[in-house]
Parts: sequence; structure tokens; C-alpha cells
Amino acid sequence: MTPAAHAYRQLLQQGLQLDLSRGKPAPEQLDLSMPMLDMLASDSDCAASDGMDCRNYGGNGGIPEARQLFGALLGASAAQTVVCGSATLEMMHDCLMYALWHGFAPHAPWRTLQQLAFIAPVPGYDRHFSICAAYGITLYTVPLRDDGPDMDAVESLLAAHPDIRGMWCVPTYNNPTGTVYGDAVVRRLARMQAAPDFRLFWDDAYRHHHLGDTPRHTLNMLEECTAAGHPDRVLAFTSTAKMTFANAGVAAMAASPANIAWWLRHALVRSIGPDKINQLRHVRFMRDLPTVQALMRRHAAILRPRFQAVYDAFTQHLAGVPGVHWNQPQGGYFIHLQVPPGTAKLTVQLAREAGITVTPAGVSFPHGDPDDQYIRLAPSYPAVAEVATAAHGLALCLLYALELHAARATQALPA
Amino acid sequence: MTPAAHAYRQLLQQGLQLDLSRGKPAPEQLDLSMPMLDMLASDSDCAASDGMDCRNYGGNGGIPEARQLFGALLGASAAQTVVCGSATLEMMHDCLMYALWHGFAPHAPWRTLQQLAFIAPVPGYDRHFSICAAYGITLYTVPLRDDGPDMDAVESLLAAHPDIRGMWCVPTYNNPTGTVYGDAVVRRLARMQAAPDFRLFWDDAYRHHHLGDTPRHTLNMLEECTAAGHPDRVLAFTSTAKMTFANAGVAAMAASPANIAWWLRHALVRSIGPDKINQLRHVRFMRDLPTVQALMRRHAAILRPRFQAVYDAFTQHLAGVPGVHWNQPQGGYFIHLQVPPGTAKLTVQLAREAGITVTPAGVSFPHGDPDDQYIRLAPSYPAVAEVATAAHGLALCLLYALELHAARATQALPA
Repeated sequence: MTPAAHAYRQLLQQGLQLDLSRGKPAPEQLDLSMPMLDMLASDSDCAASDGMDCRNYGGNGGIPEARQLFGALLGASAAQTVVCGSATLEMMHDCLMYALWHGFAPHAPWRTLQQLAFIAPVPGYDRHFSICAAYGITLYTVPLRDDGPDMDAVESLLAAHPDIRGMWCVPTYNNPTGTVYGDAVVRRLARMQAAPDFRLFWDDAYRHHHLGDTPRHTLNMLEECTAAGHPDRVLAFTSTAKMTFANAGVAAMAASPANIAWWLRHALVRSIGPDKINQLRHVRFMRDLPTVQALMRRHAAILRPRFQAVYDAFTQHLAGVPGVHWNQPQGGYFIHLQVPPGTAKLTVQLAREAGITVTPAGVSFPHGDPDDQYIRLAPSYPAVAEVATAAHGLALCLLYALELHAARATQALPA
Repeated sequence: MTPAAHAYRQLLQQGLQLDLSRGKPAPEQLDLSMPMLDMLASDSDCAASDGMDCRNYGGNGGIPEARQLFGALLGASAAQTVVCGSATLEMMHDCLMYALWHGFAPHAPWRTLQQLAFIAPVPGYDRHFSICAAYGITLYTVPLRDDGPDMDAVESLLAAHPDIRGMWCVPTYNNPTGTVYGDAVVRRLARMQAAPDFRLFWDDAYRHHHLGDTPRHTLNMLEECTAAGHPDRVLAFTSTAKMTFANAGVAAMAASPANIAWWLRHALVRSIGPDKINQLRHVRFMRDLPTVQALMRRHAAILRPRFQAVYDAFTQHLAGVPGVHWNQPQGGYFIHLQVPPGTAKLTVQLAREAGITVTPAGVSFPHGDPDDQYIRLAPSYPAVAEVATAAHGLALCLLYALELHAARATQALPA
């Protein structure tokens, strides 16, 4: 038995049960926002700044102070910001629904197009891809480079396929690569030729989720699109899912006045208004941009040791192994592990059998990872010691996978 | 100047600003649920009964104890109940979206039908009609009788139009007539011939919202449909919008196992899960069915004087006026005023000019009220004295409208 096989057998015997599969906040992170639950109590005034009773119906775009705060988070005015529900995924889905059914007048509803298509930089966020898959929307992928999507590829696709109407972007600390879009890429996205009802689904989920000492920032896409003469091109989203409570946060969209009016018109058919009590609770807790930034520094302090535990384990076991690389993102929630082609799935399978759950290999690609070489790791949720154990284990699984793969290749063993 | 004209002129001089237009809970009603805000505080345990951390992602169908409680409210098991978001209007809209796009397999998506249509008993709830209008769904209306929809008309429509796929029902204390569906009607709805993917959108918004001393109840439609061999026919909805906070409540759907699986499958594309913190807060406050019923009795005590103020004013001014009738509902949120044909809009217009806002006449009919004879009143929100003032004023407006109408008819005055 080789040392790698021996190490894997020992790993199996540990009976681990660890999960690095989803970008869930750690309990300690959620604890940071527990004081928010005290912001509204039975003796509280529940009036918004405009006097509206947050307990009653109305206020479809959100309460004024929430629109102002989330506008500040997204770099937009309150008038160009709507605050609605607890999840941007829901808002993005609903934007797509409204565009499918109603379109952006005077342009045709998207459902009437011959072959409605979106562009997705890959690796990217699997839930974006799932929405397109569910509604039969063709997804064209473009490579994600160090400074964002390959813009030559984006422009070629737009020129070749007239029915492309959208593009998914996670511009700041992309899921899963941690990529931050460079200024030149952002400006080219704002300026490029595209259909007048083409929309960038600008999912700025991690805009304030820095891990490093020097926060990275992307340009203000609303301003860039407006400057480029395409003010309606971008729908920018963010939420507090990873600021306060993952499932009980507040979500917001910033966009041009025309897009905001469009959203409100269609959202009013669906809803009499969002949960304004939760908005009020959030605003009283999050207060203003500096308070949010201080909260995010406390999140980072909890997250950094978890990321470091993975780096340490990988450095110990994997440094110098040919074809094995991992990023050290400056923000966001993921580590992206690159392995030699053809070994990602095997590694994930070995890990699962050893009780270490990671996201299925290839999930960051809408049609699967053609080279089977990427693994997404989410180290946020487990305790530091567990992250370390899981990362050590995963590294051992990879080393064993590399050995099995080499053996199969050279000895033509059955796969 | 006639006495009616004189009274209206005096009304104008009062400079009123009163609103009976929407079924909003009164502030005193919302106050009843303020203790709910203390149910979760910074030192609270936020675990659901299955151990899930309600602050984090997951649990698409709702937390177990919420599914159980809302199941009890709807007469269904926890397994046949999903709890999701704060508004049933949103859930009904999304069910329609999923049916349009995906359909109920193996049946075709509703968007592929030649002429997708719904049935709506009238008078009915305007927001149901708005959803159909927004998505181009034909609405066939049937008269609402004292015991529910005219079932001969319903069955005739179903036989004549094979693309009917849905029917709106507010079975308990219908908006705006207060109608309670009788047992025979409910059973006939469960048994009638309809397409296999036909769905009753059973909006049981007022199931526990009694005003009288002897609560009225409708049959359990899930049980009736199952007994009739059509277990998938009904999607039953209710929420706490008029139990706790109108915009920050919890909404639920009860349905067959197949329908619940269908909902969860499609909802998972849109959402990582509902606000479980608000569910936990609600369950800890609402506890069980008897506690909810006690809460609803306190709501009724606040609402009854408001309804009575309208009855008193109407009795004083309108008793014995030919063609003028109003209901005294045993539950729900509305009083339905019937006036002589051709005088509803004029009455509403005169009232608006006198500072009394009521819902635009005809809003309870999807294509307008053909006889212009119904006015919906929502007396819940203003204080009792204001309701009385508004009802007296409205009665005076009606009397003046009748006089103007008669004068126009007999003297051929310009309209």
C-alpha cells in the first residue's frame, strides 16, 4: 500500500462528518447580529421616517431609511433603490420573470424571442445557472480572467447571438474564484454594444465582504452605465444575507429610474409590500455605512482563521504538487481549488466517502466542468478546528486521487 | 335647494379626510401583536424544533413547528403545509407563475394553452383579478350567491371552455360580500368535472376572522377534494396578515403531497428559503389553535364597533330607501353596499369630493360592475368615531346621488 493509500485508509477510519459545501455564515457570525433582535420590542415605535406604520400594509419599494441605507451600500440614491424581501436570489428571479412576461417596454417580452440567452462567466454561481436552466434560457459561458470576464469573448457572443438579453456578474469577490472585476472590464461592460433591453444582473453579494487588510472595490456600475449612455443596462443587487441573518435579512436592488418604476409596477401585482418591520429592525441595527463596515470587519475576523486553516493544510500537503493551485481571496466566501484535469470528481468522491462534504465538482460551470479540475470550498461555517481537519482530509483525498488517476492512466485499469 | 343637496353642501364644508378604501387592520389591532416582538431577543435561542438554526440558510418549506401550526389553521398535516414569506398573494402569484412555466406534470405548462382561463365568482377580490389581467389570463365570472358561487354557472363554463385551469375562491367571509360557502357548494366544487390540472386557488384569508358570536366554518376543502378523488385540485392559502402584522406576517399553503412537492421543487430555484426567524417569532407568539382563536376574539372586539358604526349610520339615513341594501357580515373585513343601478360611481365620486375615500366602485368585478350598483367599504382602519363620520357622510352622498340620478333621468339633464 502506498503512503497516499495508507493515509486515505486512516482518514476513512476517523469517521468524519464535516461539510464545506455551502457558503453559510458561522454561528459566531450570526451571533454578531443578535442585538438586532432587541431593536424592536413590544414598547417600540414602529413608524418609518415618513410616518408610515411598518406593521401595516403599503410601501412597496421599502421604507425611506432602508432605501437610503441600501442605496449607500450599492452607491445609489434612495430613489434609485428598492428594498424588498430577504433574498436577492428571489429579486433576480422575479426580475427575470417580469422580463420574460412583460419585457422592458417598448421592447418585446423576452419569452417571445427565438432563443433567449444569457452570458455567464465561469466559474460562477450555480444558483444563477439553475434559474436559467429552469426557464429554458440558453447560457453561453465566457472565461473568467483575473480581472473579470473575458471581454473579447463577451463581445463576440453579443455580436453573434442577437437574442442575448442578460449576463450574470458577481463583480466583487466572485463566487467561487474571489475575482474582483477591474475598472477596464467594468467600463467595457458598460460601453459595449448590446440590445437595448439587455441587462447585467449585477449580483454584488460580497461588495462589503472583505477578508484582507486592503479592501478591494469595483467601480459603481450604475454610474458607469449612465456615463456610457446605457443607464438602464444594470440591475444591481445586494443583501444582508451575510451581514446579519442568512435567511432573515433584507435584500435590495439599485437601478435606473426607469428600471425602478418597471420593478414597482410589476411587483405591485405580486405583493402588497415587503416586510417593513424587518427593514426597520435592520436599519436601526446597521445605521449607516461606517457601522456596516465595522460589522463587516468583525465578520472578517471570524472568517480569516477558517480560510487560513485551509491555506495551512494545503501548503503542508499540496505545495509543489504539479497542477494543484488554490486562490487566497481578498473577500467573499470561497476558496477555489484547481487540481490536475480529470481528478476533481474523484477527489470529491473520495472525500465524501471519508465524511467530508464539498460542493459537487463542476457545480460552478453550468454544463459541468469540461476538464474536471475545479473544486469549490466554503470554509465559513464549521469551527476552525473542523475546517482544518476537513482541509487536511481533502488534501489527502486529492493526493490519493492523483495516485489512482495516474495508475489508471498508465496501467489502463478500469475507470 | 333640496334637503339632500343642502346636507351634501354642509358635508363639503367639513373638510373631511377619511379613508374606508382598503382592508387594513387598525393600529389597536396591530398593538395586540406587539408582544410578539419580545419573543426573540438577543439572548434567545433561535433553534427550530428540529435543531435548525433559524438565522441561517435552509428549510425551504418552513420550520416544523410553523408547518404544524399553519397546518392546524388550514386543517392539514404539517407535511401537507408549507410556510413561506409574509403574504399569500405572493404565494398565489408564484403558484400561477410555476403553473404557467412548468405546469403540473405530466400536463402541459399553462402558457402553452390556447386560451388559459380562470373562473372568478363576483363580487370578488380585486387583487386576484389583477394577477390574471397582468398575465393575460381570461377571467370568466360567475355570480356569487348566498351560499357561494353559482355552481350551475361554474359547471357550464367548465364544460364550454376546456382551457379553464383555475378558480379564485375566498370561501370564508368572502371579500367583499362576507359570503360563507355552504357545504353543498364546497362538495360540488370538489366533485365537479374539470381538467386534471385545474386548481382551486382557495384563498382562506378570513378562516379565523369571525365577527359574530357564532363563528361560521367552511368544510375542509383538502379533505373534500381527496374524498372526491381529486386530491390535487386545491391549493389552500392563509396568512397572519390580519392576525399579527399586515406586512410582516407569515403565509402558508396547504395542498396534496404532489402539490407540495411541486411547490418545493420550483420554489427552490427562486429561493434558498423563507425568513425562519419570523416564523419562529410567530410560533412562539401564536402557539396553538386555541391561542390564535383567543387572539382573533380580541381582534373582533376591536372591529365590531367599527362595523356597527356603519350599520347605525346606514340605518339612520338609508333604512327603507328603495334599492339600498347592505350586508352585516359575520366575519372578514368588508361591508358591501348595494345601491340602485347607475348610482354607485356617482356616490363614490361625491364622497371623494367630500374627503371620504372608498374603493372605486366596480373594483370587485374584473371587468367593472355592469350595473354600477356596488360599493365596497372597509371600516377596519379608522377610529370608531371616524368610521361613523365617514359612514354618515357616505349615506348623505348616496342620498344626494339618488336625487341627482333621478333628476337626470326625469329631466334629461346633461349627465
